[in-house]
Amino acid sequence: MNQKREMSRRQFVTSAAAVAAISSFPARDAIAVIAREGAAGATQTEVALTDKPGWRDQGVENLAKSPHAKLRNIPVRAVTIDSGFWGARREINVNASIPTMHDLLEANGRMTNFLRLVGKSDAAQRGPVYSDSDVYKWTEAVGFVLQSGDRPKLRASAEKMINEVVAVQEPNGYLNTYYVDDRKSQRMLPQTQTTGHELYNIGHMLQGAIAYYRATGDRKLLDAGIRFVDGFLIPNYGPAPKKPIVSGHPEIEMALIELYRITGDKRQLELAGYILRGDKRIDLPERRTIYMFSGTPFTERTKLEGHAVRAVYACCGATDYYMETGDDSYWATLNKLWTDMTTTKMYVTGGVGSRADGEAFGDAYELPNFRAYGESCAAIGNMMWNWRMLAATGDAKFADVIERALYNGINSGMSLDGVMYCYRNPLAFDPSGGDKIRNPWYDTTCCPPNLERTFGSLPGYFYSTSDDGIYVHLYDNSELDWHLENGTGLKVAQKTNYPWDGSVEMTVTPSQPTDFAVYLRIPGWVDSAQVTVNGTALSGVKPGAYLPIRRRWSAGDRVHLQVEMVPQVLEANPRVADDTGRVAVQRGPLVYCLEEVDQSNGVTLSDVALELGKRPGSEFQTEMKSDLLGGVLLLHHTGASYERSASANVLYPRYTGANERTKRVPLTFIPYYAWANRQATAMQVWTQVVKS
Amino acid sequence: MNQKREMSRRQFVTSAAAVAAISSFPARDAIAVIAREGAAGATQTEVALTDKPGWRDQGVENLAKSPHAKLRNIPVRAVTIDSGFWGARREINVNASIPTMHDLLEANGRMTNFLRLVGKSDAAQRGPVYSDSDVYKWTEAVGFVLQSGDRPKLRASAEKMINEVVAVQEPNGYLNTYYVDDRKSQRMLPQTQTTGHELYNIGHMLQGAIAYYRATGDRKLLDAGIRFVDGFLIPNYGPAPKKPIVSGHPEIEMALIELYRITGDKRQLELAGYILRGDKRIDLPERRTIYMFSGTPFTERTKLEGHAVRAVYACCGATDYYMETGDDSYWATLNKLWTDMTTTKMYVTGGVGSRADGEAFGDAYELPNFRAYGESCAAIGNMMWNWRMLAATGDAKFADVIERALYNGINSGMSLDGVMYCYRNPLAFDPSGGDKIRNPWYDTTCCPPNLERTFGSLPGYFYSTSDDGIYVHLYDNSELDWHLENGTGLKVAQKTNYPWDGSVEMTVTPSQPTDFAVYLRIPGWVDSAQVTVNGTALSGVKPGAYLPIRRRWSAGDRVHLQVEMVPQVLEANPRVADDTGRVAVQRGPLVYCLEEVDQSNGVTLSDVALELGKRPGSEFQTEMKSDLLGGVLLLHHTGASYERSASANVLYPRYTGANERTKRVPLTFIPYYAWANRQATAMQVWTQVVKS
Repeated sequence: MNQKREMSRRQFVTSAAAVAAISSFPARDAIAVIAREGAAGATQTEVALTDKPGWRDQGVENLAKSPHAKLRNIPVRAVTIDSGFWGARREINVNASIPTMHDLLEANGRMTNFLRLVGKSDAAQRGPVYSDSDVYKWTEAVGFVLQSGDRPKLRASAEKMINEVVAVQEPNGYLNTYYVDDRKSQRMLPQTQTTGHELYNIGHMLQGAIAYYRATGDRKLLDAGIRFVDGFLIPNYGPAPKKPIVSGHPEIEMALIELYRITGDKRQLELAGYILRGDKRIDLPERRTIYMFSGTPFTERTKLEGHAVRAVYACCGATDYYMETGDDSYWATLNKLWTDMTTTKMYVTGGVGSRADGEAFGDAYELPNFRAYGESCAAIGNMMWNWRMLAATGDAKFADVIERALYNGINSGMSLDGVMYCYRNPLAFDPSGGDKIRNPWYDTTCCPPNLERTFGSLPGYFYSTSDDGIYVHLYDNSELDWHLENGTGLKVAQKTNYPWDGSVEMTVTPSQPTDFAVYLRIPGWVDSAQVTVNGTALSGVKPGAYLPIRRRWSAGDRVHLQVEMVPQVLEANPRVADDTGRVAVQRGPLVYCLEEVDQSNGVTLSDVALELGKRPGSEFQTEMKSDLLGGVLLLHHTGASYERSASANVLYPRYTGANERTKRVPLTFIPYYAWANRQATAMQVWTQVVKS
Repeated sequence: MNQKREMSRRQFVTSAAAVAAISSFPARDAIAVIAREGAAGATQTEVALTDKPGWRDQGVENLAKSPHAKLRNIPVRAVTIDSGFWGARREINVNASIPTMHDLLEANGRMTNFLRLVGKSDAAQRGPVYSDSDVYKWTEAVGFVLQSGDRPKLRASAEKMINEVVAVQEPNGYLNTYYVDDRKSQRMLPQTQTTGHELYNIGHMLQGAIAYYRATGDRKLLDAGIRFVDGFLIPNYGPAPKKPIVSGHPEIEMALIELYRITGDKRQLELAGYILRGDKRIDLPERRTIYMFSGTPFTERTKLEGHAVRAVYACCGATDYYMETGDDSYWATLNKLWTDMTTTKMYVTGGVGSRADGEAFGDAYELPNFRAYGESCAAIGNMMWNWRMLAATGDAKFADVIERALYNGINSGMSLDGVMYCYRNPLAFDPSGGDKIRNPWYDTTCCPPNLERTFGSLPGYFYSTSDDGIYVHLYDNSELDWHLENGTGLKVAQKTNYPWDGSVEMTVTPSQPTDFAVYLRIPGWVDSAQVTVNGTALSGVKPGAYLPIRRRWSAGDRVHLQVEMVPQVLEANPRVADDTGRVAVQRGPLVYCLEEVDQSNGVTLSDVALELGKRPGSEFQTEMKSDLLGGVLLLHHTGASYERSASANVLYPRYTGANERTKRVPLTFIPYYAWANRQATAMQVWTQVVKS
């Protein structure tokens, strides 16, 4: 056995070197045919890549040839985000989060898991079955960062990791550091597929490989992924008489389809379709197929349930499948699930997953605040899914969910200093429970590198192109340097203090005067907005829609978007029992919260109520505090509390109906994403309300 | 192996027969010394029982000699409960619940688990590790029923089961149907002790054996329990150099102490103390010792946490330990835990255990309604613990918790027809989630026989004696026929329509005119109460206390208790986020709820609010419906709802502050215990409130 592994390693060193030789070739459309020794020792042909546009010009997704995509991604490098809200987050991400996570992955055995298999480490296997994916997600984060510009040190670290990964690949393409040695016999058994995360790991490997390829043109990891898929997976697994696949943790579906968008190999798309089809392959109890959000036909799903990350990742894959095939049954299911989520199961922060038990969606309207799970990964998956729905339609309602999740339930997942992470993102917190909400490391460390890859990829979410122009999704100081789908060069510069301020100045500069449309997103939360082009006001501005500005654009044309950025008070549907008698405060895309540390001495969050008059929201005072929490705009408002804290009262006193909140207290709100960055203190998004 | 087991079975047939011969001897103080062959074939001496009073006169607990008990139990048979609230429940319990549960236990392999070990069944082992306890709890239920009077068919069934159980006992006293065959080597390993429930099973066996012994004088099962404790446990387990014990699921502690109260064998009390002491014996992660509520010193506990049933059972054992030893550190801890529970962690129904995840206590004030766990067993454990605290002190605050749990969170656990059971007892329910709340059988069937033993033992909870008189805890049509501690005969008859009506007529008849005190419980929920003796009003009536009536009592003295039985509206401490803006309705000891099926057509519970005026509670209309739900008193009140149901609204609409509940709707409340006895329909205990 050892001898065989040693031999296969040598074979791969050879072929990896051969691949590396062509990988540095920065051709726009890399098509390479090289010889390598395969599993059985036979010479195989390296897969030719037929991807267009070439690697440098592909976005977060490459929808260039997707027949049912309305919008197409722009490459990450086409947008430069300058200093501002997201610029600061991205600086921290590159300079603190990603490098420290690299060291933590190494310190926690994530690389010795690989090295030990080629005799370079004596360490025992460490971490859960999905530990390989930690490395791949980190690699993907680096890939996205490198798409925005070279970072030699990060690139060297990633290169080293990639070399250590591919060295472990077996001759038949299999690659996994957990199902080895004594566990080798469990590989891809039906039971292992439901819990073992082998294909989940490979899905993340493919995503990491693709991001790294799109940054560098380096195919090393990508080819390893292709070898797994084409050499191991497709020949052996799929519709009978091949062996069955059950997606224990959906992820491979979207990865296979993105791979297909590079290779053009329809078998990869078909395999994704086979997995999503989910007809009965192995016997699974119903609670298992609910939990996995797989193992039954995707198109028979009627609601979001089970493990939240699994569910939204499955929806990502299904949307990708729809964009390639146009299968209406997928589209109908996706819309049904989206409505189910956004009308009954999504937090106001864009987070999803109400239950810690099973990290799962709850019943409709089951949205507890203290016990909210709202895993960072699930909010990210929600954004990824909506990004795909948006690409399929151009419908701004999907962009609204992206913005809500991104600014709140995702952004909260990483501390302001970039080195602590939330797994859970609750909407209320009581430190007396002893829960430590931010931690530098989790043994299941799915969320931290997921946040890192998301912030790394962010420029790719600012714009899309359509066959008649360009869509503007997000607002921040930035420059686009790209082209229309007809090839006409296009630059767009944004100057803004968004989200603190509602004014966005844009300069649109096509390489030559051209007729096309700029689709300007008017966020759904907007009450009133004005848009001018070169000073002339436009009509037809509608919240929750893209404003199409169709005209002949010339260099330096100025677009000004002005949205009213005032605090808004939201309540919840009365079916959300957890929010009865409570309101949430939002300003622009930011959901706000109360942290007890910001309130007057002795004020207890559970005692206070927001005192609202006839025009709720109009009485907030704003205060920009550049020295607090990395610079935040505070909201102040009058509240009411008890003369003496009621928290020492008996548990079930008699109700008198008398207003006992006779003491006025000032309340100070901070943006939700910035919570839990100081001492442990109580927090709540939903605050009790009384009428003033 | 088989031969050895066969031989040991024969030995026990012999000795069991010898025990049976003396068991039918109805001596008040059975002291028996018989010869039997022990584990190693040596002749051992049967344990002499030194219990006083004799088996017929022992109550739920035998506190006759407990130095730190203020109150002493009366035997179950001393109280006859007539037709009325509890009489009806107890009829159903005996005629429907217990017989059908017997058949279900047999149908689900609970007895073939025993029979197969002596070659009388070919069936495989069935059920979880704690399946033996199902049989023992059922035996305990029968034991209590038989204490109230013979039921030959039930007695025969129990006798048969007992014979089948004891036939399996091994020569060394060990008895368990799970850790046999391949699993024999796992017996009592530290790891097994934390999850295997071996001692939990034996704890229930002892409780079942004791109840059966107190009904019949039959020692067969009791002697088997003693053989386990004295033959297997005490010689091998305990303080070093013996092998360690960790109580994986507390239960054995209270059982050992009750056994000690029969045998007088101090080693049994000491073993319970050793288990409770819980100093470091085996390495356990902290989350495990929290979950188990054991594995660390009981006296170092500062709050209720972890698995709720484990926690309250541990508290039962610790209170028993205190009553025998007077150890102040236990008393201090018990009171701290009691305050923690009743001021921060107990539902208004007396249920405990907020989290389905781990069936656990939550953080302070974490009391979700829809997702409440409130396991029937935990409410029962809460009652059992408070019964012990009450015995130690005579403090009525403990009786208030007993009444709250009994009438609500326990009574809800069994359907009105007695053949369906709740495992969870949530305080709100939405049938669209698909949860089936009542079921005839659970593979973990802890709750059903636990409910059965509780209702079977109920007469034993009506009165206690003290050295100066008698305490009256519960009110229902009943007759006490017992005696004071000085031996003077005493009969007390209660005539009442409690809990529907607040009038209780009592007749007190000592066997001769005697000076003593009748301590009459004035429930804590009472606003106003009058007590007369032979028509003369007494002063000093105080809610939440026992009214001591000290006088010379003569045959036929009449005591009349009249409590104001009006609907009361409760709110929750503002820290209970789940109850914000909501109220609960209680009348007498009964908590009420809304079921959607009782409301006008089209009324949705999540839409409605209870419209309360200046004197909340005063505007309820009552209606006794003898043909509904076994006879219940309904409460009617005006509510407010939306013109059109708001449940189709968006998830997070803007808050306007306008009162949109402009439609008046009548609301009908039923007692909580009677919920979920008709079709699947929405239910809630906590209802939104608006001022009228």
